Amino acid sequence: MTGSTFTVFRDTESTAIKADQTTLFLDAHDVLVKITHAGLCGTDQHFRHKGIALGHEGAGVVEEIGQEVTIVEIGDRVGHDNYCDNQTCYGFGDTDVGTFANKLPNQLEPEFAAPLMCGGATVWSTLTTYPLKAGDRVGVLGIGGLGHMAIEFASKLGCNVVVLSHSESKKEEALKFGAKEFHVTDDNDVLKTSIKNPIPLAAATGSIYPLSVSFQPSSVPIQQLINNGIRIQGSAVGSRPSIQRMLDFVVLHIYAPLAFEVLSNGKMRYRGVLLAKDS
Amino acid sequence: MTGSTFTVFRDTESTAIKADQTTLFLDAHDVLVKITHAGLCGTDQHFRHKGIALGHEGAGVVEEIGQEVTIVEIGDRVGHDNYCDNQTCYGFGDTDVGTFANKLPNQLEPEFAAPLMCGGATVWSTLTTYPLKAGDRVGVLGIGGLGHMAIEFASKLGCNVVVLSHSESKKEEALKFGAKEFHVTDDNDVLKTSIKNPIPLAAATGSIYPLSVSFQPSSVPIQQLINNGIRIQGSAVGSRPSIQRMLDFVVLHIYAPLAFEVLSNGKMRYRGVLLAKDS
Repeated sequence: MTGSTFTVFRDTESTAIKADQTTLFLDAHDVLVKITHAGLCGTDQHFRHKGIALGHEGAGVVEEIGQEVTIVEIGDRVGHDNYCDNQTCYGFGDTDVGTFANKLPNQLEPEFAAPLMCGGATVWSTLTTYPLKAGDRVGVLGIGGLGHMAIEFASKLGCNVVVLSHSESKKEEALKFGAKEFHVTDDNDVLKTSIKNPIPLAAATGSIYPLSVSFQPSSVPIQQLINNGIRIQGSAVGSRPSIQRMLDFVVLHIYAPLAFEVLSNGKMRYRGVLLAKDS
Repeated sequence: MTGSTFTVFRDTESTAIKADQTTLFLDAHDVLVKITHAGLCGTDQHFRHKGIALGHEGAGVVEEIGQEVTIVEIGDRVGHDNYCDNQTCYGFGDTDVGTFANKLPNQLEPEFAAPLMCGGATVWSTLTTYPLKAGDRVGVLGIGGLGHMAIEFASKLGCNVVVLSHSESKKEEALKFGAKEFHVTDDNDVLKTSIKNPIPLAAATGSIYPLSVSFQPSSVPIQQLINNGIRIQGSAVGSRPSIQRMLDFVVLHIYAPLAFEVLSNGKMRYRGVLLAKDS
């Protein structure tokens, strides 16, 4: 068995970046992927300074495969989310254990696929796992790395999408993504607090899906849930089959690309994608 | 149209009871019910000293009917929950507007029916509205006016019922109601806190149904919901069709009676039922 040696760049407790030479041997079901693109996710901020390789939603090209691997070949383009094994960004098994991994549809460029692998999967899985139906009224609170995809997915799933945002500047794009209503939350506006406590906005028997990572407990008026039959549903990323359906759906209904802007202008809008310098 | 005059006993801001003579005229779809039995519910405590007639889960006999009423006849035994119109305990329409009302199955005595009309309906509706399946593991946290019915309903619905209680003294009865496991929450026990925060006890993708009325917001660790796909589902009482199915189910599977003890011994266990003195 030949080992593969590569460099992993890790954040440190300071702001310095540490480069590790690592040699790994592929097991029979392992795949080595050269990551060419990585989406930037809010979760990366939470794991900064933990000494791990960041950029957990990636896309790239299969460089080597273990002898039992049948679902991908060398040269295939793949995407992955190593949410389950956020130690190194080097590859994934061909089972669901460890990291999630999907072969990318031919039509989907890796720079558009990368942000779908975690952020997109989180939104897609929420919109398709629970009993949401076409025609349902869906509120999207905030248009960030997840919100802009939520608008586009929910709209293409046939929902009536209403957006609350702090910024008027995103209105035109939100409507282009498929929103039917756009409300700016001014400082004195009741909607301002609605982004933090959306319960009063929810219809009776409605569901609230908090998708932002938050390490502090929230104050929840349980009685309002009881009186109105409201549900708070935790939901995170998605299974590999769910992600595969999302990738196919994107090709079918959304591609050409989801909106994103690279970090180069110093201000990220929606979701940034990092490009490996030798890609 | 003849008016019906009757006495409504109201609580006051002090502890005195005020007796009001009230005359009401039946509309075409109204029914006048003489309440013979009323369950005592935690909600009655919340509404004490508000000047309303308490005892909102009642059972009694139809005394008069409006000219358009077809679903009950004079002399029928009925149960009702005036949760929606908690002003007086005098009657109900034959639609769902105002108070809920159901004709009682012949086999169900009013003293057993009364506590079912709100407490029972709350538990039944929760167990049957959401995707609970026979064989599911159901935790019941606390055995009070709702908990004892939850054990019996969930068990008869085919679930694997696990009970947490502060009191060892209820173990034997809990097992008789159908619980398969009974855990006492000692002072130093981790389960003690579990009744207030059951999230760590829930299985991945499990659901939590907070049924106790609580006017204070709760501190909820949202991230735990997200990580484990946990749902918090608000739920309260039930629709009239749901209550009718519950009454039929009780006759089919549970009756002879749900356990309760009348208030006469000064210490209520499970759920008390008040008997009108001239019944």
